[in-house]
Parts: sequence; structure tokens; C-alpha cells
Amino acid sequence: MKSYMLRSGKKRGLPPGTLVHVGKQSTEKIKMSYFLYDKESLKEEPVQDIDSFFKIKNNKQVFWINIDGIHQTEIIESIGSHYKIHLLLLEDIVHTGQRPKIEDTGDTLFITLQMLTFDDKTAEVLHEQVSLILTQNTVITFQEREGDVFEPIRDRIRTDKGRIRSMEADYLLYALLDAIVDYYFVVLDKIGEKIDILEEEIESNLTQDTQRNIYKLKREMIFLRKSVWPLREVISALERSGSTLIKKDTIVFIKDLYDHTIQVMDAIDTFRDMLSGMLDTSLSIMSNRMNEVMKVLTIIATLFIPLTFMAGVYGMNFEWMPELKMKWAYPGLWIMMLTVAISLLFYFRKKKWL
Amino acid sequence: MKSYMLRSGKKRGLPPGTLVHVGKQSTEKIKMSYFLYDKESLKEEPVQDIDSFFKIKNNKQVFWINIDGIHQTEIIESIGSHYKIHLLLLEDIVHTGQRPKIEDTGDTLFITLQMLTFDDKTAEVLHEQVSLILTQNTVITFQEREGDVFEPIRDRIRTDKGRIRSMEADYLLYALLDAIVDYYFVVLDKIGEKIDILEEEIESNLTQDTQRNIYKLKREMIFLRKSVWPLREVISALERSGSTLIKKDTIVFIKDLYDHTIQVMDAIDTFRDMLSGMLDTSLSIMSNRMNEVMKVLTIIATLFIPLTFMAGVYGMNFEWMPELKMKWAYPGLWIMMLTVAISLLFYFRKKKWL
Amino acid sequence: MKSYMLRSGKKRGLPPGTLVHVGKQSTEKIKMSYFLYDKESLKEEPVQDIDSFFKIKNNKQVFWINIDGIHQTEIIESIGSHYKIHLLLLEDIVHTGQRPKIEDTGDTLFITLQMLTFDDKTAEVLHEQVSLILTQNTVITFQEREGDVFEPIRDRIRTDKGRIRSMEADYLLYALLDAIVDYYFVVLDKIGEKIDILEEEIESNLTQDTQRNIYKLKREMIFLRKSVWPLREVISALERSGSTLIKKDTIVFIKDLYDHTIQVMDAIDTFRDMLSGMLDTSLSIMSNRMNEVMKVLTIIATLFIPLTFMAGVYGMNFEWMPELKMKWAYPGLWIMMLTVAISLLFYFRKKKWL
Amino acid sequence: MKSYMLRSGKKRGLPPGTLVHVGKQSTEKIKMSYFLYDKESLKEEPVQDIDSFFKIKNNKQVFWINIDGIHQTEIIESIGSHYKIHLLLLEDIVHTGQRPKIEDTGDTLFITLQMLTFDDKTAEVLHEQVSLILTQNTVITFQEREGDVFEPIRDRIRTDKGRIRSMEADYLLYALLDAIVDYYFVVLDKIGEKIDILEEEIESNLTQDTQRNIYKLKREMIFLRKSVWPLREVISALERSGSTLIKKDTIVFIKDLYDHTIQVMDAIDTFRDMLSGMLDTSLSIMSNRMNEVMKVLTIIATLFIPLTFMAGVYGMNFEWMPELKMKWAYPGLWIMMLTVAISLLFYFRKKKWL
Amino acid sequence: MKSYMLRSGKKRGLPPGTLVHVGKQSTEKIKMSYFLYDKESLKEEPVQDIDSFFKIKNNKQVFWINIDGIHQTEIIESIGSHYKIHLLLLEDIVHTGQRPKIEDTGDTLFITLQMLTFDDKTAEVLHEQVSLILTQNTVITFQEREGDVFEPIRDRIRTDKGRIRSMEADYLLYALLDAIVDYYFVVLDKIGEKIDILEEEIESNLTQDTQRNIYKLKREMIFLRKSVWPLREVISALERSGSTLIKKDTIVFIKDLYDHTIQVMDAIDTFRDMLSGMLDTSLSIMSNRMNEVMKVLTIIATLFIPLTFMAGVYGMNFEWMPELKMKWAYPGLWIMMLTVAISLLFYFRKKKWL
Repeated sequence: MKSYMLRSGKKRGLPPGTLVHVGKQSTEKIKMSYFLYDKESLKEEPVQDIDSFFKIKNNKQVFWINIDGIHQTEIIESIGSHYKIHLLLLEDIVHTGQRPKIEDTGDTLFITLQMLTFDDKTAEVLHEQVSLILTQNTVITFQEREGDVFEPIRDRIRTDKGRIRSMEADYLLYALLDAIVDYYFVVLDKIGEKIDILEEEIESNLTQDTQRNIYKLKREMIFLRKSVWPLREVISALERSGSTLIKKDTIVFIKDLYDHTIQVMDAIDTFRDMLSGMLDTSLSIMSNRMNEVMKVLTIIATLFIPLTFMAGVYGMNFEWMPELKMKWAYPGLWIMMLTVAISLLFYFRKKKWL
Repeated sequence: MKSYMLRSGKKRGLPPGTLVHVGKQSTEKIKMSYFLYDKESLKEEPVQDIDSFFKIKNNKQVFWINIDGIHQTEIIESIGSHYKIHLLLLEDIVHTGQRPKIEDTGDTLFITLQMLTFDDKTAEVLHEQVSLILTQNTVITFQEREGDVFEPIRDRIRTDKGRIRSMEADYLLYALLDAIVDYYFVVLDKIGEKIDILEEEIESNLTQDTQRNIYKLKREMIFLRKSVWPLREVISALERSGSTLIKKDTIVFIKDLYDHTIQVMDAIDTFRDMLSGMLDTSLSIMSNRMNEVMKVLTIIATLFIPLTFMAGVYGMNFEWMPELKMKWAYPGLWIMMLTVAISLLFYFRKKKWL
Repeated sequence: MKSYMLRSGKKRGLPPGTLVHVGKQSTEKIKMSYFLYDKESLKEEPVQDIDSFFKIKNNKQVFWINIDGIHQTEIIESIGSHYKIHLLLLEDIVHTGQRPKIEDTGDTLFITLQMLTFDDKTAEVLHEQVSLILTQNTVITFQEREGDVFEPIRDRIRTDKGRIRSMEADYLLYALLDAIVDYYFVVLDKIGEKIDILEEEIESNLTQDTQRNIYKLKREMIFLRKSVWPLREVISALERSGSTLIKKDTIVFIKDLYDHTIQVMDAIDTFRDMLSGMLDTSLSIMSNRMNEVMKVLTIIATLFIPLTFMAGVYGMNFEWMPELKMKWAYPGLWIMMLTVAISLLFYFRKKKWL
Repeated sequence: MKSYMLRSGKKRGLPPGTLVHVGKQSTEKIKMSYFLYDKESLKEEPVQDIDSFFKIKNNKQVFWINIDGIHQTEIIESIGSHYKIHLLLLEDIVHTGQRPKIEDTGDTLFITLQMLTFDDKTAEVLHEQVSLILTQNTVITFQEREGDVFEPIRDRIRTDKGRIRSMEADYLLYALLDAIVDYYFVVLDKIGEKIDILEEEIESNLTQDTQRNIYKLKREMIFLRKSVWPLREVISALERSGSTLIKKDTIVFIKDLYDHTIQVMDAIDTFRDMLSGMLDTSLSIMSNRMNEVMKVLTIIATLFIPLTFMAGVYGMNFEWMPELKMKWAYPGLWIMMLTVAISLLFYFRKKKWL
Repeated sequence: MKSYMLRSGKKRGLPPGTLVHVGKQSTEKIKMSYFLYDKESLKEEPVQDIDSFFKIKNNKQVFWINIDGIHQTEIIESIGSHYKIHLLLLEDIVHTGQRPKIEDTGDTLFITLQMLTFDDKTAEVLHEQVSLILTQNTVITFQEREGDVFEPIRDRIRTDKGRIRSMEADYLLYALLDAIVDYYFVVLDKIGEKIDILEEEIESNLTQDTQRNIYKLKREMIFLRKSVWPLREVISALERSGSTLIKKDTIVFIKDLYDHTIQVMDAIDTFRDMLSGMLDTSLSIMSNRMNEVMKVLTIIATLFIPLTFMAGVYGMNFEWMPELKMKWAYPGLWIMMLTVAISLLFYFRKKKWL
């Protein structure tokens, strides 16, 4: 069972709003860092202590806090109390396996979604929960572990590429979401390549492994669909939220982002339909091939069975078998056997069995 | 047929609103107990007599009456007349097999739903109908039998953990619903484990029993879906009810609860899709395996049939068979037989049948 | 083809509103009777002549006319003209095979639906069209033939059980609808029993008859679904109609009735899903069983074919066959044969074919 | 490919609104005729020349123009210009293969739909496009060829049966639509009969032809569904149009007509579900039958193979084979052979393979 | 993987609104040309330099710029800045594989959709992205490469056929869209022909290639459906947009266009259903044919196996086998063999296996 599928029962019985990390336990220290920028200046630093964040902030620059690791719940809690975030939302941050969702509480906008990456070695899609909080001038991102798809955003901030440094925190939120959704396409490209390979295998070298791989991919599609479908609703809700945190200029970008999630959905559905078709094709090829084998083998058997019978007849030891004494009986039998064999072959051919 | 599936025909012909218990008959005495608490004080006691409840209540503390057993309809009736609950709702309490539903009559809020537990011995999901009534400061819970998923709630009340003692009756109602839905995840976790085991069996040791178990689980999913789907509507109706019985602070918790029911639905759907996929996989593996067997066996047969024919020919007793007298005929025939056998093997291999 | 499936083409070309009975022709006389009651008094009588009805009625008591048989269209017509019912609705009464529907014309409320009964002998669900008309203080019911599910209602009126005698005509309408829907549960119970029997057969004694019966039940579900699905809309429309004919007190009962129709739908859908699952299971069991047979038989054949060949070799009559003269050749061959047979068995076992 | 399926590409590149008949070319002259009637008087005549129509009309009587044949586009054009009908609608008239649609332009109401008839000889459903135009006091009907389902309407006008002569043009429009939809039931009755015959064949005499016929009918259902589904929308739009051309009295009839189209849809869906079920049944019967054959044949083969081996052993020519000299060896071998055969039969029976 | 399926990952990490062409790289020069016309005058010219366009325009005539090739992003950019088109829309132009969409920004109307053509040689449907921009008096079309379906429009402008020269730019936009959708019918006609051929093959000469082609077409339908389904929404949005750029006279044409897209959808769905049916038919024919072969072959084998056994018995070399000495044993055995063979044949026939 994929771990991102289920709220674990581990937490059962605790009062709602209790922060208990339910993912894989980790003893690594949580990594924290921030960006503080506007068009003119930029500061980027790792931070050891959660309290230092609260001293840095000023109200003119965009402030992006990134936190890799959610297993130290006291950090989440102190951020929560500083920014006045409802306990139930904090719970959603540490509780991996969330369905993508958006919560607009007026002062803060909370979004949680799945970040997908593709592990080239195991050829598997990896899911990681990312939670994003947007408050006045500030974006906070929580990730399960180090390594993310935000590097291009960091580069754009550092090198002042595009409009990101000129825009406010809502655009940063958009840019981060866009980076995540963009990576969905990378993942889908990889899956597309796997489908291409499987399609070729079906044509040229179909084995049971091919079928198993198609089944696996189809199942991956079930999981992908489950995490992308609600994402669509999240982006759509973001677009229509009317939150004062989202500036009008950013809406058009979010609309574009929405189109992308639709395309992701479309691609997943198409992949699923294609994989179903491939499965049917491969099953029917398998079955046809098997039938071909059985038919040829059965024909060979059928051909020799009457002949063996004839040979058996003249292997009998009756004293009175006049044929045995005739000189032409032996070559005559050969002729008869050949006639029978050829007639059968002719009949099979006429029936298009050969 | 699962008993919780159908309104039994047992009641047919009686006027609507007639209280007749339709579940398994029980002669055990109904167990009744109550909690009476606020932030400062707590009273918890079992009660023998229904009338004693009505004396206990005061309007400042939260009052939780729990009743295990619904086969003594006079108890239900006297509660109903005391709290002015419509006869049709009382009927729903004793009539197990109800579809989850909510009724808001202004003064009271009536909810009935299925409590799921998992019997580890029989590996079956057990359904039990729980009805909850919320009126001014009071929550009444009706269960079919002893044993429930409310123990953590009781502990939190007793030990004053979390906010429960500081909140009012509507929060208690929420907490009870939350406990029930939380246990759904426990049940789903168990089912997830069973699916994992079955998946491994498919890979390593697929038998007909595996298939049968997949079918069984798939059917369990049909039943689960039927009882969870309307639950979603119930929680959503509770959230949007606008009832004065539900305080604004509690709404955010109910919203969170709603998210959980969505996740339950998602998990059930995903399980169903996975089980369908597993069934297809197992059927195709079964069929491939069978084909493999048949092919190898048929190849062995096909190989020997022409050879047997040749041996048969020279077992004939014709007087005039010149080959029989030749010295090299016997080893020659062996060579010929080997040639035929090897050619066939070669042909089969070329055709990739071996 | 089930007769209740289709508007017959028999009527084609007649002007709309022409009363032509399209069901099975019947020469029996139509049976008519009435109830006239309030809390204090009750009159129940059969009536020979349609006109006598119109003399009986008074405006204070509830008046229930029941008409068994719809093949005498003149009766329908005179009732229609007396109560000012639109010709098209009268047409719907005599025209069996209607989709359940409701028509609210202000003064009258017209409902037509299917009454289901279960024929224990043929194990078939029987459909009978019932039309109900509610006007001021009066309910008129039209049935295709004698025998109905209203007997409990009549008993409740006669013995003054429940609230029926205290309520008005709209409650009687509800009670009649409730009786019909309640009987659906009886029918579903019977089908549930058949499903249970079939499930046991699948486990213990699966035959082609089992499969055929599953198919039959599944088809029955198609028909049931078609007549229950619109019923849901009818009851829902009745609940939301806002007709002045329906008193507020009765609405809560109709709501309860609506819940019951939902449960009927749920049960039908669940049955259908279960039957589909059972069909798949039975097909796969059948196929596995067949495969088992074929495998064992083929293994036996495969085992003896090489042995027969060996025997064939030493049945040849070549003059120069040195083995034939050796003393240990015969027992040696036996050893060789046994070795081959055991090796093959060993190989089959290793491959898990045995 | 059914010709009514597709807008042909024949017209491609022409400006929209160009009248090009795309159906089968016909050289027959178009047949035109009219009815002019009110309650008191009636005139019915064929007409040679399109212009004569325009002289006939008066504003008090209902005027029905019927045109059989749409391949002479100049006639369509002159009607169009006389009644001020948009070119795109005229294009829809001549362009067969339209999806049923309704256009309300204020002054005129344009409806196009498929008229179905059943060819008893080829047992095929025939589609013919009918376009109806309703303007002030006038109905114009365009048909692809002679022969229609309107004869009963003509009779009712001629003999003044029903209310048609008392009503206005909107009722005539309704009556014509009703006649078309009524004929759908006739067609469905015929298909129902074919399904009955096929069901009997499945039970008693299933052949590949039966299967092929089921497939054919199922495909027919796909086409029927496609042309009836939008019809439902058309009738519903007509009912809710609020057009001043439709009088209030006629609305109730159109509502009734709408119910009929729903019933047509229901019947088509039921037929499709039934045919799917029949297909599954017939496939499983076919497969079971084949399995039965293979099993019996394989059992016979399996029975004789060990016996043949035994006979082969004692056909060997070894000099030292002590059994050959024993007197009881031959009858002993027979006993052994019978024992083997009977044991195998016993084993097969125990396994329920026989 | 079809290249038009996916937003490529090539662009990942770039700021949104960066113009990067993601289709196949092309080194050909982009071809640009324009039409400038009103009822009286017409100018048509190719243009080398993007800036020359901006000089040509006047506000009275309709101005149509067509650009074949989107790999030179600087051209797109300068058009974008001239007409003030949002960068994200420009990105959609160069980013092939877009889902059909419409964007109304008040001053401009942006539409992107797939143009389908059919390659007769490879029998494949080709997709090409076309983007259309409508601003005051001007239509700009962007195509991926040369060759389009607009030639009939150009002819109508050149020869002043139909109303196009009298209408404004919005009608030109409609005409272009109409030309694209009209060509869908041409493509569907071709597919329809392929389906016809495949249907004939199923009846007369079913091979594995037939099946493979059905699968291929079915997959083509998946892709077609994906690009036509959103097109419907686009046209519908255009119809209901209320944009001041679309004149009221043009709306009726767009409505007609909408009907055509519905018909395209219908045809695609019908094709898909038909192909599914054909696949089922062909699989069942294949399976029946195979069964037929196996049955006949198995019957032949079964017939000779008992006979061979009998012959084997009298081939044994026991000294004491009294039958061997009897004169009539040999012909008697022949009679017995014939009896067995005929009985078996008789039995097989009775069982309808032959």
C-alpha cells in the first residue's frame, strides 16, 4: 500500500488538532532557510533556530520561509502560533497523505498538495506532501524532506529573471505552485516514454513482463488521478477565492495554471485509456499466439494419428492376414498413407487452418 | 445477505412510527450510563432506570447519555416523549440497517450512521448502527450492542485532555462523529494490509483462494461504499445546516471531519479500482500459466507422435519389407528419428514456442 | 418481452386522450368498493354501479374509492368527468406500462406507479400498474386486477390502529404509497434470499443453471431499476410539490417515504453489483475447473506418449536389432521407462503442474 | 456506414447557407399537397407549383403544406424566402443526417427530427429526416421521400375525429410530432419481438448467427439512441419555449409527448442492457458447450493412451520376455487393462469430470 | 506518444510567459501573408517582414494576417506587443499541444484549437495547432506549418462568393472556424470508410491485422475525443461570450457551428461504440473459429485412438493368444473397428459436435 494513500490509524483517539507526525520517522534535523527580497535587494540564508525567523521579517519585502522536514512538531507549532494558524491546519501539515486542499481564513491562505517526482532508478513516481501558507508578504513552504522542484524559482529570484522580483508574495505562491504542476508534466513525459517502450514491446516482443508493466502503470494512473483531481478544485478555488491576499495581476497567471492542471488531468485520462487499450491488445495477441501454437501442434498430431493406426493394423500377428503375404501390400500401404496425409493437409488448407 | 443491507419485511403492514426492533433479538438488559461535565466538575455513572436520567440533568453542564442496546423499545419511547422526538425518528433508531441520515427539527438534531469495526478473527468488517441526538446541552447516543469506538472520547473527558471539557454539547457530538470516522481509517488500514498480502500472493503464489479473497474484498467495498457515500452528505448537511445547536467554533472542526469522510471515500474508490486491477492481473496470470502448461505438454506429445508412427511402420509384419533385411536400417531409422525430433525442436524454438 | 415494458403500438393513430385499454383483455366485471370514514364512524361497501359513488360522498369524511380492473373504459371516463380529470391522465390509467409519474393540476393530484409482488411459484417479480388520484377529501385507486398490498391499510382503518382514522385524505394517499413501497422491501427480501442460495451454489455446487439464474436475476434488476428510478422522482416531487392538497403534517411522513425509496434504489444497485461480481466469480471458477481437468488429462497423455514410443521401437521387426537378443534388454527397458516416467512426474511437480 | 450518421464532406468549402442536397440523388419530381381546414370546412389538394401555395392561404384556417422530396432546392428556397426562414435552417432541411433540433426565431418555430420506420423484409430500422416549420396558422412539413406515418392524422382531419379540427396550427404540429414518436413504439415493438426470438434461440438453438444478430441489434440501439436522445431535448425545449406560437392548451399535450420520448429512451436503454446480457449469456453458453466437448473427447483419449502403451509393451520383439511364454499372461493383461480403464473412469467420476 | 498530447517538459523552469517553441524544430523561414478587403476592394500579398503588416492596416477594411510557422518567436512577440496580447497567450501560440481554449480580454478574442487533416498514405489523422486572434477589424491566424483547410475561404474572398466580403472580421473568424470544423467531417468520413472496410473484413476475411487496425482506430478515437470535447466548450463560450467583437448577425452562424461540433462529438462517440462492438465481434469470431478447428481435430484424434489400441492388442507377441489362430479374427476385428468408429461418429453427431 502506498503510504500517501491513507491517514494512518496511528493518531486515533487523540484530540483533533494534536500535532503528531505520521510519516516515516526521521532523526535528521529539520533544515530551514529563507529568502527576503524586493526588486532592489535580496537576502538568502539558512537558519538554525525558528525564532530567528520572526526577527527578520519586515513588511516591505517578500519573505519566503522554506522548511524541509515536518517531524519536529514544535517548530510547526511555534510558526502556527506566530502566524495565528488554526491547529487543524497545522495538523494537516504534519499529517502526510492529505488530499490536496485549500483553506482561506481571511488573513492566511493555506494550500496543501502533492509534489511528484520520478525516480529514474526504480521507475516509480514519488509523492511528497507540500504545504504552502500565504500571509501578508510572506510565503511559508513545508516539505517532507530535502530536495524539491523549486530550484528554478530560487534561480529566478537570485538572478532577477522574469518578473518575480517585481511582484509580491502572491506571485511567489503562484510561481511555486506552477513549479510543482510543471513537474507533473515532466513526470507524465517519463510515463509517456514508458508507454512508448511498452507499445513497441507489444508489437515486437510481447512477454508476460510487458503485461505486468502495463498493469503497474495503470495502477500508477489510479493513484495519480486521485491526487490530481482535487488539485484541480484547489487551483480553481484559488482563482475564484476573491481573497484580498491575491492581487488581480496574479489571477491571470493562476488561470493559466488552472489550464495546465486540466491538461494534466487530460493526459492522465488519455494514458489510462491507452493503457486499457494496450492491455486488451496484449491479451488478444497472447491468446492469438497461444491459439496459433495449439493449432499447429494439434494439426501435426492429427496428421499422424490415422497413419499410426494403419501401421498398427499391419503390426498385428493374426495368422490369417492375406495382405501380409502380398508383395505390393507394403508399398501400397505407403501410398495409401501418403494419400491420407495429403488429403488431410489439403482439407486443413481448404478450411484455412494452415 | 448482510443483515444491515435491508429494511426487513418483518415490520410490513404496521402503521409508520411503530417501534419494532428488527435486528437480532437479544435478551440482555440494555446498559445505560451518563457523563455530566463542565470544565470544573465531572460525574460519570451507570443508570438502571430510564427515569433517573431525567432527574439528573441541569442546564449548565454537558450531559451525555449512552444507551447500549435498542431492543427494549419502551426505553426509546420514554426518551422520545421526554425530548419530544418525532416517532418516525425513534423508528429509525430501532430499525437497524438505516442509510446514514440527518434530521434537523429545530430543537433537536438527529443523526444516524454506521459504526464500523474490524473483526480480526474472521477478517470481516462489522457494521453497527449508531444514532445520535443533540438537544439543548445534551447528547444521547444509541448503539446496537456494548463495545464501541468512543473509549478515547471518554478518556479525554475523564482526564480533561484537549478542549473537550471546555466546549459544549455540539463539540461532544462532533467528537463522537470524529471518533466513528477515525475508526473507518483503522478499518481501511486493515483492508489495506489484506490487499498488500493479496498483492504479494499474486506475485509469488497465486491460487484460486487468492482470487476468491479478492472477490470477497471487492464485494466488501460495495457494501462500504454504500454506507459511506450518504455519510458524506450527512456531514456536509451538518456543516451547512445553520442549526442554532451548532456553535460557530465547532463548524471548523466539522469541516475537517468532512475532509476526512472525503478521504475515506477516496480510499474506498482507490481500493476498489486496485482490486479490479488485481483481479484482472490474477486472471491473466492464471490463464498464462495454464497456457504455458498446455503448450509444453502438447509439444512433448507432438514430438513423439511422428516418431511413434515410424516405429509403428517397421513393426508391421509384411513379408515383403526390404528395409527389414538391411543391416543399417535400424541405426538408420534411429538417425532419422533423431533428425525429425531435432528438426521439430528447432522449428519450435524458431517459432519461440519453447 | 415483459408486457409492462412498452406502450403497445396497438393504440397508434388514435387521437391522444382516447381511452383504450392496452393490457391483457379481461372479461371479468370490474370490482368497485369504497371506505368512508372519520375518527368516529366508518362505512365500507362494495358498489355495483359507478354512479352510486357520486351520491355517497360528503365533505367531512375521508372517501376512498378502490377500482380493481381498468378494462371498462366507460367507468374511468365517468369518474374522470365527475372529478374533472384531464383526458390524458385517464389515458395513463388505462394505458398500463406507464413510467411512474405525478401530475399536479391544482385540484387533483395524480400519481401512477408500479406495484410489485413476488410470485413464489415461478419465482418471478410481478408488476401491476396502480394509479392514485387525490382530490378534496377523496382518494381513488385504480388497479389492473384484484389482489393488492393494501390489506394492512384496510385493517388499520377498520380497527382504528395508528393515526389513520384521525388524519385526512392526504395521509391515506401517503399510507397507500407507503404500503406499495414497503412491499418493494418484501420483494427485495425474496430476491436477497435467491441471491444467498445462488452464492452458496457457487461455493459448493456450481452448474450452468446457477449461471443462468444469476443472469436472470441480473436482468430482473434492470427492469426493477427502470420502474423504481422514476418513482424516486415522483415521491420527491410529491414532497416538494407545495400542493394545498398535502397538509404540512403529512410532509414529514412523505420525507420518510422518500428515504425508503432511496433505500430501495440502494438495495437494487447493491444487488446488481453483487450479481455482476457473482457472475465474474462463477465464470472464473468454471474456467479454472475446466483448466484443472484439461491439465490432469493432458499430463496423463503426455506421460505415456514417450513410453509408447519406446515400446513401439522394440516392436519393430528389423532383422538386425542387437538389443533384441540381449538378455537384460527387456528389464532394462522397463527401468528406462520407469526412469523417464518418474523424471517427467518430478519435472511436472517441480513446475507445480501437479 | 449508415448514411444518416454524418454530415457528408460533399458540401465542404461552400459558404454556409448554401442549399445542396446531400442525400441519395433522386430524379423523381417532388410531391406537394396541402390541407386547409377549420371546424367547419376542409380543403385537401395536391399542388404542382410552389407558387400556388402562397395564393391559397388565409389567416383563419389551419394550413398544412406537406412536401415529399428535398432534392429540388429551389422549392425549399422559395418557401424560405416567402416565410422568411433563415438560410441556415433551409440548409438543415436539405442536409439530411441532422441531429434533431429546434429553432425558435420568434415568428417561426423550426424542428427537425428523424422519422423511424421498420422494413419488415430486411428487418432494418429506416431513418428519414422530417423537418417541420410552424408559423402563424401554418405548418410546413418536409420529408425525404413519399410514405410517412402521418396517415392517421390525415384521417382524423378528414373525418373530424378527436379535437384536431377544433384546434389551431400548434396542435397540428403536436399531432404530427406525436405521430412520429408513436411510430417509435411500433419500431421498438418490432425490435422487442426480434429480441424475444433471439432469447428463445439462446435457450434452444444457439448458433453463431444468433450472436451475430445480437451484435447487429445492439449496434442498431447505438444508432437509435443517438437520434432519440437529442429528440428528448427538442420536445423539452418545445414545452418550455414560451413561444407565442404554442397555445397554453397545447402545452399539456406536449408534456404528454415528452413523457413518451422518455419512455422511448427507457425502452432503448433497457433493450441495450438486455442485449448486453444476452451477449454475455450466449458467449458463456458457447464456451461451456465447447468445454464440454473438449472434456469428453480428452477423456476418451486419456483412457486409451495407457492401454495402448501396455499393448505396445507386449508387442516388443525381445527374445527374453518371460511373460510372453506364460499361458495366463494374455488374459491377465486384459484383466489389468480393464482394471486400469475402470479405475480411471472411477477417478474421473469422483472428480465430477464425467 | 503523439506529440500533440503533452506540454513538453522542455520548458520547465523558465518564467511563465517565456516564448519557447516546443514542437519539432524547423529551420524553414516563416511564411506570412495577408488579405485586406471590403465589399469593393481586395488586396492579397505575401509579406517578408513583420513590420510591414503594421503599416498596411486601415480601420475600414477587414484585415486577415496568416502566419505559417511558429518557431520564430520574435515574430510572435512583435505581433503580441503591437496588438497588446498577454504574454501567456503568446506562449499558448508557440506551445503546441494546447487544449482548445478561448480567452476574451475585451479588446481581443483569442482562440486556439486543433486543425485535423487526414494523411491518405499513412491513413493517419494529423493534428496541427491553429491559433486565431480577433481584434478590431483584424484576424490573425497562426499555424504550425504550411498547408491548411482555409483554401475555400480564400477562394470565397477572392471571388466574392457568399456574404464574406460584405461582412466584418467576426464573420471571417467564424468562417475560418467553420472551415476547420467542416474538415473534421472530412476526416470522420475517411475514418467511416476505414470502419466500413474493417466491417467487411470481419464478415469475410478476419485476420489479426483486422483486429490490430480496429484497436488503432479505437485509440485514434481517444485522441480525437480529447481534442474535440473542449472545442465544444470553446464554441459554446464564443456563442455566449457577449463580446462586443462579435456582431449579433454572426451569432446565428456560430450557433450553427456549435451544432456541427455536437455532431462531430456524436459521430466520434458512435464510432467508438461501433469499434468496441466490432472488437467484441471479431474476438468472438476468432474464438469460435479456433474452437471449431480444435473440435474437428480432437474428434479425428479421438476416433483413431481406440482403434489404434485394438490394433496394438493384436500386435502383441504372447504365445497363447487364441484369437490369432482363428481364421475370422482379422476380418472380425475390422468389423469391430468400423462399428466402434461409426458408433463414435454417431454419438458425436447426436451430441451436435459435428
